[in-house]
Formats: sequence, structure tokens, C-alpha cells
Amino acid sequence: MMAFVNEHYLKLKAGYLFPEIGRRVRAFKEKNPKAPIIRMGIGDVTQPLAPAVIEAMHKAVDEMGRPETFKGYDDGGVGYEFLREAIRRNDFASRGAQVDLDEIFVSDGAKCDTGNIQEIFGLDNVIAVADPVYPVYVDTNVMAGRTGPGADNGQYEGIVYMPATEAIGFVPDPPKRHVDIAYLCFPNNPTGSVATQAQLARWVEYAQAERTVLFFDAAYEAYITDASIPHSIYEIPGARDVAIEFRSFSKTAGFTGVRCAFTVIPKSLKAYRKDGTAVEVRPLWNRRHCTKFNGVSYITQCGAAAAYSPEGKKQVRQTIDLYITNARTIRDRLTRLGYSVFGGTNAPYLWIKTPKGMGSWEFFDLLLTKIHVVSTPGAGFGPAGEGYMRLTAFARPAQVEEALDRFAGL
Amino acid sequence: MMAFVNEHYLKLKAGYLFPEIGRRVRAFKEKNPKAPIIRMGIGDVTQPLAPAVIEAMHKAVDEMGRPETFKGYDDGGVGYEFLREAIRRNDFASRGAQVDLDEIFVSDGAKCDTGNIQEIFGLDNVIAVADPVYPVYVDTNVMAGRTGPGADNGQYEGIVYMPATEAIGFVPDPPKRHVDIAYLCFPNNPTGSVATQAQLARWVEYAQAERTVLFFDAAYEAYITDASIPHSIYEIPGARDVAIEFRSFSKTAGFTGVRCAFTVIPKSLKAYRKDGTAVEVRPLWNRRHCTKFNGVSYITQCGAAAAYSPEGKKQVRQTIDLYITNARTIRDRLTRLGYSVFGGTNAPYLWIKTPKGMGSWEFFDLLLTKIHVVSTPGAGFGPAGEGYMRLTAFARPAQVEEALDRFAGL
Repeated sequence: MMAFVNEHYLKLKAGYLFPEIGRRVRAFKEKNPKAPIIRMGIGDVTQPLAPAVIEAMHKAVDEMGRPETFKGYDDGGVGYEFLREAIRRNDFASRGAQVDLDEIFVSDGAKCDTGNIQEIFGLDNVIAVADPVYPVYVDTNVMAGRTGPGADNGQYEGIVYMPATEAIGFVPDPPKRHVDIAYLCFPNNPTGSVATQAQLARWVEYAQAERTVLFFDAAYEAYITDASIPHSIYEIPGARDVAIEFRSFSKTAGFTGVRCAFTVIPKSLKAYRKDGTAVEVRPLWNRRHCTKFNGVSYITQCGAAAAYSPEGKKQVRQTIDLYITNARTIRDRLTRLGYSVFGGTNAPYLWIKTPKGMGSWEFFDLLLTKIHVVSTPGAGFGPAGEGYMRLTAFARPAQVEEALDRFAGL
Repeated sequence: MMAFVNEHYLKLKAGYLFPEIGRRVRAFKEKNPKAPIIRMGIGDVTQPLAPAVIEAMHKAVDEMGRPETFKGYDDGGVGYEFLREAIRRNDFASRGAQVDLDEIFVSDGAKCDTGNIQEIFGLDNVIAVADPVYPVYVDTNVMAGRTGPGADNGQYEGIVYMPATEAIGFVPDPPKRHVDIAYLCFPNNPTGSVATQAQLARWVEYAQAERTVLFFDAAYEAYITDASIPHSIYEIPGARDVAIEFRSFSKTAGFTGVRCAFTVIPKSLKAYRKDGTAVEVRPLWNRRHCTKFNGVSYITQCGAAAAYSPEGKKQVRQTIDLYITNARTIRDRLTRLGYSVFGGTNAPYLWIKTPKGMGSWEFFDLLLTKIHVVSTPGAGFGPAGEGYMRLTAFARPAQVEEALDRFAGL
């Protein structure tokens, strides 16, 4: 007898995509310490926090330094009401989507939330993901034991993969077969595609008919500029009965290094016991949240709330617009250079066909070694990503121009 | 066909202990809005952050506001090296315990870490916990499906409970039978007991013989004043082969509302596959950490590191000493009032026998309604806690004195 590991972890393919990229970049830098690397791979932002956010965080730090305003645990860990109310009003009510305060759970990241959410669902659910897909959706299901072993192409037995190909504009329709849970991400990471009202309505309709739960990752909604594209799944009638939505301050207020996000679980969302009894999902997440998590820093929450102030909104929007301009620049210039470029409108991600049928990792290595640009190989997101690479729009404008100049000379 | 919930959640007894206390306190306050409530129940601190921490956080906020010093993702999410190095040197090397930088994983809370750690171990491990026990250890195993249903006394089938009774000084020895994983917490929550070098050595010896993994929760080590009591399990020879240690800035630097902690997993710690093959545990946690978590706020990490500066150490120590004085005051005055009081030396928790054989919850309600003091009913931590209540030393000194005056008049 002995302590056993969770053997499902041993099914995971070597290294999470981004650490693997990190390893290759470090190895290159060690050999070429003076190479002027430009990072357009991992979706990390570069612009500083907005002045309104900085001011609010200074104020909160000072409050933490005085006995009469010091804050300990955020009671229940679901987020201060001032932040949840700002979220409710600005992100949902303003778009005609009904979300109640007690349906909002503030957290330390959408990666954490989209990774943890599967825990409150049974292990025998059949899950569907797009291919290519944000690896966290898949890996956390592998770890939990919801899949069989992985194949050489990186896919796992038991998961339903929905190819997101150029032919369908990188937006899969619901599958013909039944699935219990579907992960959707729009604007999409990695392809930069967006789903229309009609496309999302088909998903909601499917979920209602199949009693499927939709995990809707809307971390990039702030990059939607086309007025006809929904920002929230709750803009679709009926979605409150079938969908959980994930949001983040990372790519809006620039919080990748500050850590704040939130998840919405409507009270009307139900899943089922094996005997068919309906169970409310929201109390399960609440229980998980207050047992395996302990709330977000008061200072961080004050900073996040400031992003909704009139000044904060204006400043945050300026930064988002800067990244949107980056995306347009990349799209325009690479298109002119003859690349096939997708995404990059309504999304901070660009999905680019590798030239001459080159493999994703081969092109990644070429860009790294020849022009010192870090990209993300499409194959890292799944077999349908082979032959593509992802660029992000989060570098500084001067870096973007410099990188594009180097592409021109490639 | 339909989406299924994780039915293990439905085994959980109504409400996590602290939300239940919160509900009772809110209900009382609604009826008695003017009652001057003093909270000595939940282990939340009341003293402001140290000036050195405040200064470091202001500086970090400013860095986040300037493009040239802005920080995005904490690469890999395991914590900045400046913080891990301060931890290594101050918490371990200074006590002769070897811990390497890459064995330290910075996180957003010891509650999160002690709740999440079980995920990297198999579901068929037999786990042992003390009774009474910090509920997170048990509830997270219930949620994962490592137990059977719960009994009326709050215990779950399949868990080995080790009674921590007065007769053994509230420090259980290893069980006679084999267990795969044992949760230990010293200084103990809730009883305030501490384990001697010899007692911990027996646990390490047991773990070596049984190939058991020890989860050692040392969140309260800063309250140890007796020089002979180990602060870290790694002060015990051989512990690096069998133990994971959890630490927190919550009760040291007052970070309950800021959220920072860390977990140590030595490279030599192994667990096993079903076929008996040994597997290193550290890479599994690293994988979990970089997949289901995304690092701690840079601002928070700068604040935590400042608690190790010469000034920071002095200031943090002053606050800890204030709470230690609170604990002594509570212990002395309640003892004089005729109560049997345990803990409160080397620990911020006091474990007090209820008078006249009163039930824990009955005494909780009495204290709430008669003297408006919020305690924690011992039975909330397990059946062996029945007949006890827990008080914490984290209130303000004037509140502590006031509460004790009220006890005197009870």
C-alpha cells in the first residue's frame, strides 16, 4: 500500500503549449543573447494599467494600511458588491442581458475559472471542444479523468472535437450527435473568429433540446467592434437556462499580472442527477468557490471597479483601441505581403496560414530564428490548427511595426 | 441524455461551517441591529498591513502604471524569484531546512492549496484527518469523490478520522492502520495544539514505512514562541521524502484580504502508479499550477516580499506579538473565570470547553445572543469537537478586553 498519483495527469502530452514555447525561446536566447526578440505569441498585454485603476489601487492600498479601513476576507469570497454591481450594470444590463448580482462570482482569472468549472459536473459527461482549442479546456478534463489516452495528434479519446476550419469561417455549428457540455469561445482564441447572433442562437437551441450546458468564454468581448455581434451569450433568448459565461479583466483593463475575472451562472441553469432529477448548478459553484478559493484581493477588486468609472472606461477603451489598431495593422500588412490572414477584426488574435504548406512548429522556429518574432504554432491548439500560426495584437505599436518590417524582409 | 452534475457535491452537509456562522450572525443582527457584536469566530485578522508592505505595494502599483515597468503574466505562475528566494532564505534556510527555489509554488491562499492538492493524487487513496479538523481538507475530498456518504455526525465513509482529544494533548499519533495520505496542521486549527519534534518525527517515520504522503499545513507557524517546537516539517530528517508543506501570509503579514501563500513540494517526494512505479509529485503540481491557475498579482508578491525586509520583519512581528498577547489574555482571563482553556500558546487559536456540558452550537448561540460574541462551535470541526468552542486571537486588543468583560458578566 502506498500513496497513488492521479494517473490521468500522466496522459497529458509533454508540456502545456505556452511553457513549451517559453522553453524554445529561452534556449534560443541563451545561444543568441543579443537577438532583439519581439513577443507576439502568448496573449500577454504590454500597455500599463489605466490611471483611474492605478489611482483606485493606491487608495485601496492606503485603506489596507489603516486600522479603520483595513479589509480582511471578502465574505464568502464571491466578490465585493461594488464590483459585482458595476459588472452587472456595465457588462450586462447595458446590453439588455439580465444577470443578477448573486449570479456573478469574482475570481482571480478566466483561465482558473474555465479550468475549474468542470469540477462541479460529473465525470461521465461527454464534452465537446473546437479544434483548434485553448488547451486549458482540454487539459483540465484530461486531469479530471474525463478522457481516454491521448493520440499522437494531441487529441484525447472520449472528447468530441469540432473542426473549426476555414470552410466554415472557423465557427462550428452544434454537432449532429448529443454532447453534454460544450466549450465555446467567442471572440475565439486562437482563430479570432466571432459568432453571429444566429450562430449563437443555434447553439442555445441545441443546448435546450439536448439539455447540454454551454461554457461560454467571452474573455475577449471588448474587442468586438461590429455592432451586430453579441458580447454576451445572455443576449440570446433562452441562454440563461443553458449557459455559463466567463469574463476577464486581463485583456480589457490589462490585468494579466493583476488577476481578476468573473463567472456568471444564472439561477435558472440546471444539470441533472443520474436519476434525471434536475439540480441547480449555481449553488454547486458557490460551494466550490467558498471551499477551494478564498476571494480576490480587495486592492485588485477596487482596481477592477475603477475600470468601470467614467474616466476608467475612457482610458481602458483607449488601450483596447490601441490593440485593435495593432490587429488591423498586422492584418493589413501581412495580407499585403501575401499571407492569408483571418481574425484580427473584432478580436485581438490573428490566425495566419503558414506559407508554402509549412508545418506550424517549423514556421514558429523559422520566425524565432530568422526574424526573432515569437508566434504561437497553430498545431499547439489542435490538429486543425496545423498549417496556421497565431499572432496576438498585444505588443507595443512600435514593436508591431518592427515585427512587420522583419516579416517584409523574410 | 443530459449534462450531469458531480453528485459527490450533493453528499456535502448543509453549508460550509463559516457560511453557516455567517447566516446565524446576520439573522441575529437583523433582529438586533444595535447589538455590539465582537467577532472572535472566523480567523480573520484586524490589524492593518505593515508600513513596509504598504510602501512596497504602492511602489508596485506605480510600476504597473508605467509602460517600462509594467508586468503582465508571472511566467509559469509559480511566483517571482525575488519572493521565492526570500521565502527560501527566511522560512527554511534560517532554520536549517533545505528547500530549493523550484520547490516553492506561490499561490493565492493556503485554503486554495490545501483544497486543491488532493487533485494530483488518485481517487482511491485512503486519507486520514484529525477530528476536529479544518473542514476544507474533508470537503474537498468529498467533492472529488474520495469518500462515501456523510453520517449525521458530519463524518464521511472512507475517511480515517484520528480523534484529537484532551487525553492526548490534541496531537494524534499515526494510526495503527495504513493510510495513503494524512493531513496534519500544526500549530493546529482549531485546537491550537502544537506538535513536538518527537511527535513529528514519528509521523515522518510512519510515512516512510507506509509510503504515506503527509500534507503539512503550517499556516500558523509564526505563532510558535517555544524554541523547541519545529516551524517546518522539513526540520525533521527524512521529511523531504514524504511531506508537502503549506504556508500563508494571511496570519503573518495580515494578508487575509490580499491573498498570498505558498506550497513546498520537494523534488524527492514520490507517489506511485497502480503498478508500483514511483512518480515525482512536484511536476504534477507544477502542471496543475500552470494549467488551472495563473499566478499571483505582482503587487501582492511585492507586498509579501516586503514582509521579509528588515523593517517589514520587525513590523510584522509586532502585529503577531499583539495577537499573541491577545491569546495570552484570553487564556488567562477565561481560565480565571473557571473555563478549561487549551491552545493559545504557540498558536492564535484557543480551544475552550463549553461550561456545564453544553453543546457547541448551544453555547455558540448563547454567546451570540447574550454577550454578542461570535465564536466557532467546536462541533463544526467534527464530533470530537463537540463540547468545545474555538476563539481566535485576531480581534483588536480593546475588543478582546471588552469580550472578556462580557464573559465575566455571563
